[in-house]
Amino acid sequence: MYRTHTCGELRLTDAGKTVTLSGWVQRVRKMGGMTFIDLRDRYGITQLVFNQETDAALCDRANKMGREFVLQATGTVGERFSKNDKMPTGDIEITVTELRVLNEALTPPFTIEEHTDGGDDLRMKYRYLDLRREPVRRNLELRHKFCLETRRYLDSEGFLEIETPVLVGSTPEGARDFIVPSRMNPGSFYALPQSPQTLKQLLMVAGMDKYFQIVKCFRDEDLRADRQPEFTQIDCEMSFVEQDDIIRVFEGLTKHLFRTVRGTDLGDTPFLRLSWEECMRRFGSDKPDMRFGMEFVELADVLKGTGDFGVFNSAAYIGGICVPGCASYTRKQLDELTAFVRSPQIGAKGLVYARVADDGTVKSSVDKFYSPETLAALKEKMQATAGDLILIMSGDEANRTRKQLCELRLLMGGRLGLRDKNKFALLWVVDFPMFEWSDEQQRLMAMHHPFTAPKPEDVPLLDTDPASVKANAYDMVCNGVEVGGGSIRIHDAVLQAKIFDILGFTPEQAQAQFGFLMNAFKYGAPPHGGLAYGLDRFVSLFAGLDSIRDVIAFPKNNAGRDVMLDAPAPVAQAQLDELQIALAPAEPQQP
Amino acid sequence: MYRTHTCGELRLTDAGKTVTLSGWVQRVRKMGGMTFIDLRDRYGITQLVFNQETDAALCDRANKMGREFVLQATGTVGERFSKNDKMPTGDIEITVTELRVLNEALTPPFTIEEHTDGGDDLRMKYRYLDLRREPVRRNLELRHKFCLETRRYLDSEGFLEIETPVLVGSTPEGARDFIVPSRMNPGSFYALPQSPQTLKQLLMVAGMDKYFQIVKCFRDEDLRADRQPEFTQIDCEMSFVEQDDIIRVFEGLTKHLFRTVRGTDLGDTPFLRLSWEECMRRFGSDKPDMRFGMEFVELADVLKGTGDFGVFNSAAYIGGICVPGCASYTRKQLDELTAFVRSPQIGAKGLVYARVADDGTVKSSVDKFYSPETLAALKEKMQATAGDLILIMSGDEANRTRKQLCELRLLMGGRLGLRDKNKFALLWVVDFPMFEWSDEQQRLMAMHHPFTAPKPEDVPLLDTDPASVKANAYDMVCNGVEVGGGSIRIHDAVLQAKIFDILGFTPEQAQAQFGFLMNAFKYGAPPHGGLAYGLDRFVSLFAGLDSIRDVIAFPKNNAGRDVMLDAPAPVAQAQLDELQIALAPAEPQQP
Repeated sequence: MYRTHTCGELRLTDAGKTVTLSGWVQRVRKMGGMTFIDLRDRYGITQLVFNQETDAALCDRANKMGREFVLQATGTVGERFSKNDKMPTGDIEITVTELRVLNEALTPPFTIEEHTDGGDDLRMKYRYLDLRREPVRRNLELRHKFCLETRRYLDSEGFLEIETPVLVGSTPEGARDFIVPSRMNPGSFYALPQSPQTLKQLLMVAGMDKYFQIVKCFRDEDLRADRQPEFTQIDCEMSFVEQDDIIRVFEGLTKHLFRTVRGTDLGDTPFLRLSWEECMRRFGSDKPDMRFGMEFVELADVLKGTGDFGVFNSAAYIGGICVPGCASYTRKQLDELTAFVRSPQIGAKGLVYARVADDGTVKSSVDKFYSPETLAALKEKMQATAGDLILIMSGDEANRTRKQLCELRLLMGGRLGLRDKNKFALLWVVDFPMFEWSDEQQRLMAMHHPFTAPKPEDVPLLDTDPASVKANAYDMVCNGVEVGGGSIRIHDAVLQAKIFDILGFTPEQAQAQFGFLMNAFKYGAPPHGGLAYGLDRFVSLFAGLDSIRDVIAFPKNNAGRDVMLDAPAPVAQAQLDELQIALAPAEPQQP
Repeated sequence: MYRTHTCGELRLTDAGKTVTLSGWVQRVRKMGGMTFIDLRDRYGITQLVFNQETDAALCDRANKMGREFVLQATGTVGERFSKNDKMPTGDIEITVTELRVLNEALTPPFTIEEHTDGGDDLRMKYRYLDLRREPVRRNLELRHKFCLETRRYLDSEGFLEIETPVLVGSTPEGARDFIVPSRMNPGSFYALPQSPQTLKQLLMVAGMDKYFQIVKCFRDEDLRADRQPEFTQIDCEMSFVEQDDIIRVFEGLTKHLFRTVRGTDLGDTPFLRLSWEECMRRFGSDKPDMRFGMEFVELADVLKGTGDFGVFNSAAYIGGICVPGCASYTRKQLDELTAFVRSPQIGAKGLVYARVADDGTVKSSVDKFYSPETLAALKEKMQATAGDLILIMSGDEANRTRKQLCELRLLMGGRLGLRDKNKFALLWVVDFPMFEWSDEQQRLMAMHHPFTAPKPEDVPLLDTDPASVKANAYDMVCNGVEVGGGSIRIHDAVLQAKIFDILGFTPEQAQAQFGFLMNAFKYGAPPHGGLAYGLDRFVSLFAGLDSIRDVIAFPKNNAGRDVMLDAPAPVAQAQLDELQIALAPAEPQQP
């Protein structure tokens, strides 16, 4: 037996017991004639003590233990002389009588501490050492608990977890698929699922009624900072439901998770629901951060045509936010804000500001174009008071400008400390448009996905004005992050065919790609709908992290590489031959 | 709202209530002036009733409903005139006042009944209809519960479920990998994991202490009848443990699963443990079916050199089983047994039998070679009594003959009804050989995998006689099926390198393929070990099924195809171009 206890469980009440612990050397300290070793495992740290006077040989051995050596120590639990109230085992120590080195360790390339000196690349290469650090380990413990409570709750609601296959067919609509050559079917390929969307719909046709799965999904996309080629969804689907039924169940799940996993009580009131249009109008985003106000005020009636400022006079949209207490911003600070909205990521032309002085007067960057009365009307409209800073943007296309103003709002909210990671503001965004226009593809694209049902009252518009059709789609948003989203699905083969038509599929293409689903719909498909949560993102919100990477045991870097495993890598020619494929390096691009 | 109740929950106590149900039409029956529709959902079947006299129009509509139509019906719960005690809702019926067709259905290509008329191929193509059948649905419910209870138990034992990546590196040792071309790293490939073996070992190096995962694994093998290219494991690993610690935990899990999922109490006594050698000696198998006896009796001392039968006199092994009550087997039946052991799958040369008559005398197929005294000694040795049939096989190589005799034992056990699917006999097989010789590869192969630790006392033998080294490996066997297996792992980089050397890896090959693991071992790897269960197989045992296919929602056929999705399939040339690969059809084989 390697241990009688873990390194996290001994207390003063255990004093006098003979115990055996196993773990890693966190640190070795020599003080006078004593040597102290902090021994660490997943459960905590316990102090081992060695006395030069009582056992010089053992103490000498203890002095030679390096960081991260794996030790087994037997000894007696005693009360500590100087207690450490920062750790649960801080009242006791083990006076060691036997010490065994279970394994030696090279000096790790970075410190195994809460705040490590290791950079990101090094931490990823030696991820098995990084995971020894408490904050990273805590994230995985949180994820475990999050998944377990998800399963408990959904099971109690009658959901069945059903595994869907990982080797499926390629469906080019959506993101790019990872594909897998089939040796037994040469020239053919499996694809890894971007989500089990169609499979869970087939499970509804199969009468499974309530399905969920915590499941890996795969997208071969160019990775932005916080995307992973493989990620995990909590994927759910229900039959014989309307939007309200689904919202009720998953609001319940969400409250359960906050309460049991994070100790946060979200109360009994239902989450706020806002239409997509209202979100865009008030916050310039379909995932507004509701932890703070600073809502958009539309200013066309105050500023358009009321002065000589041509930019506003020709704008399709003028909107402002009122930033409390920032009238003291210097010219330099304001120039920085202007530079921010002009940056390529935001792409605005400029920024107008107006400060409300202590005496209530308004000083703006467009003073010369507007009368003091207009500026007073602006202040009134913005409900600004002394010390406030008004920031105004305008543009040709309302929603584009709103999105830009949204970025500014989030920036200012952050500066004012209004985006507290321990505060949670949840809402449902509903009534999404069914389609959005793609300039690139020159066609309507599904805003959610092609299986989303239009609102029944909008079905006639599919023939006359499809762009105006609203969908029975909903997103759950937390702190400005879309944590989940879903929709009521189409369960009628004829309506599904019409949607494919609007999306530019020929009947043959639709049949080739989604025939299995449309055929299934002919055999008695029930009304159904569902939702999927992004697990990595949701857990990282619970953990207060900006990145999803540290809630994943072995993440990939931005080039899709696992630098620890050194994957992907070339394979043997024999493997390619068996699969009847060959490398075909692209011609180098013309410079 | 689509329903107030499911089709499985209404009872006589609900009589008088107005309810709304939704579901599928199981059948429509006309009797006199009444029409009955059995409405089905996941939860059960409820009888709807329509009366020609009280509402002729509604009754006429009901008569037009086809099988598998999706209906919503509102009406009043009433007591049935003729009750059906075979179904939980058999005391009541719904007198319908409103009927709505939610979806029509084509006539399904096979009957949606417990015993369907659909063949395997048709059932797989329309799997979403097959899953509507109660026995198939029950299997998925069982699987859900099995997984949930596994997670509950392991969580209560302090295990963390940690997701390991699906896109990993290719490790040619073991079975063939599925590989995934990387677009972002042209010419490089990910592999899908055959198991998370090395990753879970890295999690132990990372100090995670107790890990588990219910996880998809992938092997690109030629599929035998009951293999799937993707399958699911319950994968577990623990640190600071010896074999006994692991056996204790997973025996606990197994008992918990039997009790909570199947209602089977396996009692308090520990499972039997048998060494691999003893299993081979007594049952000719490393996964003996312990539901019945019919143990092997070694007969060399009785039959070798004691008569003129050359086959036995030159045999390295002679063994027999005593089949109770089969002395009455006819010559034809015995010839069939001989044909069975001679079949190519078994490959034996022949079979000797001896019947024990009612008067206790022995009549055998080798009477002419042996004296009555020898035959009496045979009977004595076999502990055979009147009415028993003794079956004897011999051969040049003991274990090969034992495996052949094992097949005969299983056949006879089945014929005698001793392999009851509702009876469970579990045991641990321990002390496996570390290596087995591969004639094909002309080298020693790892019997479990190359990370398995040798028994400490056998380590010196690695240099002198590696083939005799025993491993700290163990299998859990249930009813002749290996449901789980594992080992204590090597945690020492030097010992691991030595094992790779014995397995014929050059140091460079070992470093290239497993360097990440051997390097990790240098940074303080704890002693560790683990186990993995084959989930599909384990659940199918619980379900009493011979095949794993019906505990998988969407299985693949023997050619690795999902005939419902029609996957795998050719992909667009553009996809191949982006991945910088090309098809390279092999030259047709010479005839």
